[in-house]
Amino acid sequence: MAQLRIALAQVNPTVGDLDGNADLIVEWTRRAAAAGAHLVAFPEMMLTGYPVEDLALRTSFVQASQRALADVARRLAAEGLGDLPVVTGYLDRRTVSLVRAGQPAGSPLDAAAWLHGGEVLVRSAKHHLPNYGVFDEYRIFVRGDRLPVVRVHGVDVATAVCEDLWQDGGPVGVTGEAGAGLLLAINASPYESDKDDVRLELCAQRAREAGCAVAYVNMVGGQDELVFDGDSIIVGADGTLLARAPQFTEHLLVADLALPGASARVPEGLTPIDALDGTTITVDRRVLSADPLPAYPVEPQECAEPLDDLAEIYGALVLGTRDYVRKNGFRSVILGLSGGIDSALVATIASDAIGPDRVHAVLLPSRYSSDHSVSDAEELAKRQGLHARTVPIAGMVEAFEAELDLHGLAAENLQARIRANVWMGLSNEEGHLVLTGGNKSELATGYSTLYGDSAGGFAPIKDLVKTTVWDLARWRNAAAGAGAGLPFLHPFATAPIPEAIIVKEPSAELSPGQKDSDSLPPYSELDPLLVDYVEHDMGRDALIAAGHDAALVERVIRLVDLAEYKRRQYPPGPKVTPKNFGRDRRVPITTRWREPAAD
Amino acid sequence: MAQLRIALAQVNPTVGDLDGNADLIVEWTRRAAAAGAHLVAFPEMMLTGYPVEDLALRTSFVQASQRALADVARRLAAEGLGDLPVVTGYLDRRTVSLVRAGQPAGSPLDAAAWLHGGEVLVRSAKHHLPNYGVFDEYRIFVRGDRLPVVRVHGVDVATAVCEDLWQDGGPVGVTGEAGAGLLLAINASPYESDKDDVRLELCAQRAREAGCAVAYVNMVGGQDELVFDGDSIIVGADGTLLARAPQFTEHLLVADLALPGASARVPEGLTPIDALDGTTITVDRRVLSADPLPAYPVEPQECAEPLDDLAEIYGALVLGTRDYVRKNGFRSVILGLSGGIDSALVATIASDAIGPDRVHAVLLPSRYSSDHSVSDAEELAKRQGLHARTVPIAGMVEAFEAELDLHGLAAENLQARIRANVWMGLSNEEGHLVLTGGNKSELATGYSTLYGDSAGGFAPIKDLVKTTVWDLARWRNAAAGAGAGLPFLHPFATAPIPEAIIVKEPSAELSPGQKDSDSLPPYSELDPLLVDYVEHDMGRDALIAAGHDAALVERVIRLVDLAEYKRRQYPPGPKVTPKNFGRDRRVPITTRWREPAAD
Repeated sequence: MAQLRIALAQVNPTVGDLDGNADLIVEWTRRAAAAGAHLVAFPEMMLTGYPVEDLALRTSFVQASQRALADVARRLAAEGLGDLPVVTGYLDRRTVSLVRAGQPAGSPLDAAAWLHGGEVLVRSAKHHLPNYGVFDEYRIFVRGDRLPVVRVHGVDVATAVCEDLWQDGGPVGVTGEAGAGLLLAINASPYESDKDDVRLELCAQRAREAGCAVAYVNMVGGQDELVFDGDSIIVGADGTLLARAPQFTEHLLVADLALPGASARVPEGLTPIDALDGTTITVDRRVLSADPLPAYPVEPQECAEPLDDLAEIYGALVLGTRDYVRKNGFRSVILGLSGGIDSALVATIASDAIGPDRVHAVLLPSRYSSDHSVSDAEELAKRQGLHARTVPIAGMVEAFEAELDLHGLAAENLQARIRANVWMGLSNEEGHLVLTGGNKSELATGYSTLYGDSAGGFAPIKDLVKTTVWDLARWRNAAAGAGAGLPFLHPFATAPIPEAIIVKEPSAELSPGQKDSDSLPPYSELDPLLVDYVEHDMGRDALIAAGHDAALVERVIRLVDLAEYKRRQYPPGPKVTPKNFGRDRRVPITTRWREPAAD
Repeated sequence: MAQLRIALAQVNPTVGDLDGNADLIVEWTRRAAAAGAHLVAFPEMMLTGYPVEDLALRTSFVQASQRALADVARRLAAEGLGDLPVVTGYLDRRTVSLVRAGQPAGSPLDAAAWLHGGEVLVRSAKHHLPNYGVFDEYRIFVRGDRLPVVRVHGVDVATAVCEDLWQDGGPVGVTGEAGAGLLLAINASPYESDKDDVRLELCAQRAREAGCAVAYVNMVGGQDELVFDGDSIIVGADGTLLARAPQFTEHLLVADLALPGASARVPEGLTPIDALDGTTITVDRRVLSADPLPAYPVEPQECAEPLDDLAEIYGALVLGTRDYVRKNGFRSVILGLSGGIDSALVATIASDAIGPDRVHAVLLPSRYSSDHSVSDAEELAKRQGLHARTVPIAGMVEAFEAELDLHGLAAENLQARIRANVWMGLSNEEGHLVLTGGNKSELATGYSTLYGDSAGGFAPIKDLVKTTVWDLARWRNAAAGAGAGLPFLHPFATAPIPEAIIVKEPSAELSPGQKDSDSLPPYSELDPLLVDYVEHDMGRDALIAAGHDAALVERVIRLVDLAEYKRRQYPPGPKVTPKNFGRDRRVPITTRWREPAAD
């Protein structure tokens, strides 16, 4: 066996910030060198950020990425880091471009490079292009067909990109036949609940198939609706977990591995191998250092404990919110605080994300607001130390009523829109990003006012059904002062959310005595049905067979289908479930399709 | 040569309305039979409407389509139409489903069927799946691999689906070798400006390649952001145009063709042919009627004149607006009428789409509105016979000012949002769909108020740059009373748009003496630059090389890139250019990418 200390740089690049991302590569390579690593790896599309979407089709952007890669290689060498091999993702293109109707313009590649000695040693690109869920990669990339295998201190290290690990065949399929001692996969794999378990199992499976250790480095950070959770992993050839990085934070995962020494007989050069998926993968062998290192003392392995389910979701919301604020150049947020649970949780997420001193709350009481709404909101602002102000809306409502004769829903919506007009005005005047309080149960059923409560720049809890909103509020209160030690929590000494807000019956307070239950089924019945219909794509019959009430199924399906026009104009928010109401679920606005009644 | 009278049913289905779409098939088959046709063809995905997006992944929806196909075949026979072969598009799935990560659930097919004698004679499916521009078909379909060739009155008729005509190889590539006498392509091909010329040239090219006539039937109608323009076409084997249907209206295009008789030697059954694109296509031969018809007298061919460029765009806007209103179950629209050109054109499009008696205009003067704004808006409402009312907003603005101290842009946006609150309130109270007046120049540069002028349900001119707005207004006025004879124009006797509205300098009138030119470059310079940057994906250097002013390029690129968050919350509107701000251009909200300065 040969020893190798590898460093996985789980870092947070920003889409389009090629200079800043290059700085991250230099900075974290320096840290890896200081830790005595022999090889350092960065995530997929590290230099450009991910996902770049149609920017990949712009020639100037591809060229900038190519230049940035060459520049960072030279810079590493200039700063004395040229001897440490660096593997990183970037955007490249095929030299011979295939011009054909409907093919991605310029033939872009989701590429990986080994940098060494101030130069690019070898390049490859993702072979399997995901085109499902949030991914649209057939639109913007063409396939790679190469598996680089680089000998580092006598170990043959193969590199692959993200989806190639998830699909059978392709570069990962030939890793075993190529005789690699380590498979290094670079990733930009977005968070969704329970995905950490799937990833670990996948790495273990591929390790056993290829007969070699697998090192998996993932991106961390928020990008529009996606949150990358990190959770970088190293498993042995038998699938045993060896090392794991924490979620939702930048981290250098350093591990000492004992790996099989490479066969001296295999020469450098290109070897085509049938990938058994209808394609041929060319193994591209290079030798950086042929001989194993002299034995050295091993450092203790680091293996972060996975977070529990609620902690994990909460971490994703905090990181997604923080990065949306920061990467869009905002320094503060504003939100309407109603005294209800949704805005209370959003305010708390904001406090955790950017600190309560940068959170501005507006209380907007109307003639229908209950006394406890105002006092509960005030209590929350006080506990967290938010900036809070009160703007009564009664006079504005009366000014509209002087010109318009509105009733029922129209009169209710008027109030919600006046509130939005106030916080949008304060946002425009003072420069805060507006946070929106809507949850997934509301988005699903259309129980919200277009341009009212649904207005804003970012909607932190839009992918949480209401019952999860309550669960997270209780979880967050329990974590306060309990020494949970989670890096994404502000150190509140006591529960940040008043208990009264958690236990009260939900109400929009837009008409006298109004309750959510006047318009919606109980959330305990609604939410599981929404999950099955929206996230699992179950049809009417399947929903009833799964135990949902038949009349409720009819009613809820209809509500969900009719509310699509509202969802299209909803602000972005972090995806935390397997299917959100963002780019993940694509249905027509105009459709007469209704799930058929049972035969 | 053998004679054949074919009928292309250019009809307007609705997504999800399987019963209604089946009714259309029966009704138009009856018309084709009455016209003496020997074969009738309907568009791609006729039974389900197009595009169905992720509905294709729902088992209940696929099964409903399969049942609807069998039902309509039986119904045609029951109504005495079973002898007339019918070709139609529908949604099907592969019998043996490929379950694999990232593959479309249930293996759906964008399918075509021949119906005859109450049964489904033969099925096939689209081979080339478009996954660019507005299309995402790798997400929802798997490939077909069959070319049906059906002998009708001694002519071998091959059928293909839409994209198969646009790509080399695949079913269309083997049509010549299969010896077809006619290639029938069924389509759901969305409109964009000048696409009619491209389609004709494409049909002519494929006819010459395959050595046979090509009949091209297209869908017509609006579906969310897409407009299908019809423009069904028949060309001879030498590429000569033989018959053409009008755009933007349902139509039965009937043509008598003289076609080569089929070779008697070729037996029924399956023949695999190498499609020279890495795939094998199986030719599936069937015989309905082996012998040519006795000679019969030929009807005169019908060949609609293509519309000129502005007429074509206007037709698309009217049809897109009409169908969005109708298919979503609205009977009327409401819009704010400012006295400016944008709302004037939108009102006129609405009058043409659904009749002026169903168009409700609101005049919302503020302290900054000029006298001519009000009088010009009133004059337009009078000329067109709209329902008009005036709701002054000064009192509402004052009520906000009593509580908030807003300045500059924040104060301007407040007024725009109060206006939106009024028309949204009237929409909620009275049930009208809100039309939004924003144009593409505004969307591109972010020159609009989120939840203000950008609020509404449908934005008819969101894909028109400002100079095209003026061009269309002049064109529409010229078409009035001039007997243009276009089916999508309301018969106004005189110019529907007051000249004063067309010639005035554009202004948002949100602050004293405000003009668009205070904030934006002249539209004559801005608009061509936007087209090159947004629609042609040209980078900074390419834009300057194309003659755009360097400083203007820097400024406009920055404006466009920063306004993405606003565009994400904009209502849908009909796509009429090669690239709109809908699902067609996908860029991140959060990005630090700025086109680099020249070296």
